[in-house]
Amino acid sequence: MTSLHGIYPYLVSPVDPATGAVREAVLRRLVEHLVDAGVHGLSPLGSTGESPYLNGEQRAEIVRITVAAARGRVPVVPGVAAFATQQAVAEARRYAGLGADGLVLILQQYFPLPRAAVAGFFRDVAAAVPSCPVVLYSNPRLAGVALPADLVAELAEVPNIQYFKEASGQTGEILTVLNRTRMKVFSASAHIPLTVLQLGGVGWMAGPACLLPRECVALYDLAVAGEWEKAMALQRRLWRVNEVFGKHGLAACVKAGLELQGFEVGPPVAPQLPLGEAAVAEIGAALREAAS
Amino acid sequence: MTSLHGIYPYLVSPVDPATGAVREAVLRRLVEHLVDAGVHGLSPLGSTGESPYLNGEQRAEIVRITVAAARGRVPVVPGVAAFATQQAVAEARRYAGLGADGLVLILQQYFPLPRAAVAGFFRDVAAAVPSCPVVLYSNPRLAGVALPADLVAELAEVPNIQYFKEASGQTGEILTVLNRTRMKVFSASAHIPLTVLQLGGVGWMAGPACLLPRECVALYDLAVAGEWEKAMALQRRLWRVNEVFGKHGLAACVKAGLELQGFEVGPPVAPQLPLGEAAVAEIGAALREAAS
Amino acid sequence: MTSLHGIYPYLVSPVDPATGAVREAVLRRLVEHLVDAGVHGLSPLGSTGESPYLNGEQRAEIVRITVAAARGRVPVVPGVAAFATQQAVAEARRYAGLGADGLVLILQQYFPLPRAAVAGFFRDVAAAVPSCPVVLYSNPRLAGVALPADLVAELAEVPNIQYFKEASGQTGEILTVLNRTRMKVFSASAHIPLTVLQLGGVGWMAGPACLLPRECVALYDLAVAGEWEKAMALQRRLWRVNEVFGKHGLAACVKAGLELQGFEVGPPVAPQLPLGEAAVAEIGAALREAAS
Amino acid sequence: MTSLHGIYPYLVSPVDPATGAVREAVLRRLVEHLVDAGVHGLSPLGSTGESPYLNGEQRAEIVRITVAAARGRVPVVPGVAAFATQQAVAEARRYAGLGADGLVLILQQYFPLPRAAVAGFFRDVAAAVPSCPVVLYSNPRLAGVALPADLVAELAEVPNIQYFKEASGQTGEILTVLNRTRMKVFSASAHIPLTVLQLGGVGWMAGPACLLPRECVALYDLAVAGEWEKAMALQRRLWRVNEVFGKHGLAACVKAGLELQGFEVGPPVAPQLPLGEAAVAEIGAALREAAS
Repeated sequence: MTSLHGIYPYLVSPVDPATGAVREAVLRRLVEHLVDAGVHGLSPLGSTGESPYLNGEQRAEIVRITVAAARGRVPVVPGVAAFATQQAVAEARRYAGLGADGLVLILQQYFPLPRAAVAGFFRDVAAAVPSCPVVLYSNPRLAGVALPADLVAELAEVPNIQYFKEASGQTGEILTVLNRTRMKVFSASAHIPLTVLQLGGVGWMAGPACLLPRECVALYDLAVAGEWEKAMALQRRLWRVNEVFGKHGLAACVKAGLELQGFEVGPPVAPQLPLGEAAVAEIGAALREAAS
Repeated sequence: MTSLHGIYPYLVSPVDPATGAVREAVLRRLVEHLVDAGVHGLSPLGSTGESPYLNGEQRAEIVRITVAAARGRVPVVPGVAAFATQQAVAEARRYAGLGADGLVLILQQYFPLPRAAVAGFFRDVAAAVPSCPVVLYSNPRLAGVALPADLVAELAEVPNIQYFKEASGQTGEILTVLNRTRMKVFSASAHIPLTVLQLGGVGWMAGPACLLPRECVALYDLAVAGEWEKAMALQRRLWRVNEVFGKHGLAACVKAGLELQGFEVGPPVAPQLPLGEAAVAEIGAALREAAS
Repeated sequence: MTSLHGIYPYLVSPVDPATGAVREAVLRRLVEHLVDAGVHGLSPLGSTGESPYLNGEQRAEIVRITVAAARGRVPVVPGVAAFATQQAVAEARRYAGLGADGLVLILQQYFPLPRAAVAGFFRDVAAAVPSCPVVLYSNPRLAGVALPADLVAELAEVPNIQYFKEASGQTGEILTVLNRTRMKVFSASAHIPLTVLQLGGVGWMAGPACLLPRECVALYDLAVAGEWEKAMALQRRLWRVNEVFGKHGLAACVKAGLELQGFEVGPPVAPQLPLGEAAVAEIGAALREAAS
Repeated sequence: MTSLHGIYPYLVSPVDPATGAVREAVLRRLVEHLVDAGVHGLSPLGSTGESPYLNGEQRAEIVRITVAAARGRVPVVPGVAAFATQQAVAEARRYAGLGADGLVLILQQYFPLPRAAVAGFFRDVAAAVPSCPVVLYSNPRLAGVALPADLVAELAEVPNIQYFKEASGQTGEILTVLNRTRMKVFSASAHIPLTVLQLGGVGWMAGPACLLPRECVALYDLAVAGEWEKAMALQRRLWRVNEVFGKHGLAACVKAGLELQGFEVGPPVAPQLPLGEAAVAEIGAALREAAS
């Protein structure tokens, strides 16, 4: 089973606003650019990838293109987000069949679910793709379901559930999980990525890494080398980007930033609105500051 | 344009848990039973219909069967719930093409949206089906988007947005909307339906009406006749059902109750769990009490 | 034990912003005005009375003045709000000793408390003033503690806990309590007061009644007479006031409205800010509309 | 002005449950024990000190005793928590007069306040004790008021507002404040204290330090010495205590732990309940594990 670590940019989903067609050339060029910059893997269809705003065909197309463009140089680990177990199982199998090296799995909430139902979802989907490593993703703010540490510990017994990504922003939860389980932990952008690495995390899956791949890889390399002071100086410079993204919305910001960098990824999927001029200027400034 | 009023049961979605196939015979029998009981319309694909847990083919199949079974005797007003405008537009057109007489429209939230984006969603979907009356549905607890009264007032200017259904449980919101707009209001089960009728509401769209169609129709008839004391006595008896449903989860409760009544609608869609014995017994008792 | 029903204005607390002294003459004149207008009782030290913003001496002074000014013509039912049982017991005894005819009792939350602790608070305070009727007050939005219906039912067994005031705005909770307990229910301004009377409520404890006492009494009288249509027409006219208060903050609004009516009650207690000109104009307009 | 840094145990408030009297001998013995163990300062009347559950006389008595027992060996920095500006000003002056070396200032919310009102509270109280360093305390979970980074930045311009303590658990907020302001930051127990020190924090104000003063001081010393690996190993061992406290309630846990250690601090103030046997055993186990 592929081992996952390092910087995984969350890819945006470049979709034509009029026709809904995936812009294959743009996505291929973005993948090439990121792999060139040294990222350790690619994660399409995360929050940054606007997964809930796409239909099944768009989603499969994005996985297909990403795998093709990556050409085996780095692992491709798409997100699977669903309300229903059967839909998640179907998507997980489809992406594995398309060549995905792992999955980031998230349960969306409509009706509140008891703990046993939440556990059942993750167990059933993981069992459907037994040779595929699964990243358990807890994102109560966007998806409505929190995964408390004792549930993470229970799911850590499933052989292919090997990673945990926490996006509540409560960094203490990560230490609890690391203390109690064998889970390997990825940082989300709601946390300070360097802090997660200091706690023992294995990487960072993040929208900002689409825009600042070299800087994110440098942060990871400094952490691996134990160069904590240099790493902290770089982290402080990079943090502004997380702040701006938190303020204006993840997908809209990354898409606007990529447009500034010359990638015609288009606007966020409606009803989301493109950012206004002031917000775009703020993103541009944060990127320049972070890259300096 | 069809005028909507009265009791609209929210239909469950009887789906085979193993194959995902819609149980057409069961759904047809349920429709026949409800129309016989005097309901004024039918609403498939609401919350009770587990819409977010179904795929597009299952959803279209349910609308097709419901329209066919209703045979024009009562209006069929399915729910359209989506994150993306394009998906909602596609579903709205598809259901209108299948013979739906109106739509209950709900926006699901992933990323928080500014007011203009929310307004844009409802305007764009309504414009796609201009001859179809639209029920604006505000359900912040399940779908994450609240529709404040001034936004409802703005959307009331759209010709085919003519109805409002409020599910926050804050009954005062309904009076505000009735005071300020030309909207006709349907009660959701989070409110006391009789109270909404007393305030000037035109009906009740509800899961419980699947199980107690005659009693719900009787409540509506008493309200229309201005028999407020008898209506309140009946409402107090029926309220226990709303309480039990609020406690155990809407879809699971209505499906369990229909199974008790001999409709083989199956369990709620996974990862939702079927209710335990104690909850089923509580539902049975509440139904007997309400029907007595 | 005094029986409570009808319109109870929540009195503001006119406090000199520089010295903290209670403006006795202003408070006496306000009481006289309200009793003249026909209100059925007086409730100092509620939310409108800014109870948490006053110290113990200010609070006792306000009860003393209100009792003196009421001269036995109507019951005086002050609020007791506290985090600690001992403080609530001390205040309850002090106000009973000053001549209060009942108490509105509210528990403020700092640390989340288990159900048994919440029940214990209400039992212990009620037991300290056994000849004083107690209004159980549930206000999760401002005080942090919700009183679910089964806890209300348990506390309804305490002889002098006889009333329930619900301020969550979930009107269905009131029907549940009325169905299950012997509690008499007062409306809070988060509900539509007429609706609570239609459900069987005994009155309305409210900030707006400070400003519109005659109209509020008229609403109550119409409801008691079963003149539901006239009552609803008046309720619709009055509702605008509740909306404006919900928008700008209760105490600040009632104080601003009373200043417009010639009562020099002063600004809300700091750090609360006085309302701006636009908000004051909106309050003036709502009062004129409601009184027309 | 005294400079604050290092480990500040939040003192419990040992109050006789029957009489309300402060147990002076117990509090003096606890202070002696903590100073002996090397703590850098003492913080009575924080959350752990159950400040909202005490009356003004109890609070002043606790400050007086703590100052007397500390005998100038370490700074005493009591909490001031209030809804009203005038009450906070009065308490701040009183504690400064009793010899406090600084204040931890927290605004409690009843009515939601606009930003200008929140800023005004902190400015006015700080201006009342101009020679007293002030720790700005953001605790939205318990007190209801969040202090966003731009407000903290604005308040950092006030000469004696020099410290920031963040208790939302969103560690990223701390990096934002450190990046943008001159504030010195203390960790709260909702964060991983070592992480805050790694980010540049100056210390930890904490309930657990009442129970594990030597271990907390050792953690701080390792961080100051840049011994990050040893510090992380100790932090991981200590973290269990934070977890248990988060589960059972801060004040109740620290009081139960101190009773286990032979300090007769009594139960938490009613209506809080003493912990049950199982919880006390869990605390005992966590303390043994942390101290091993």
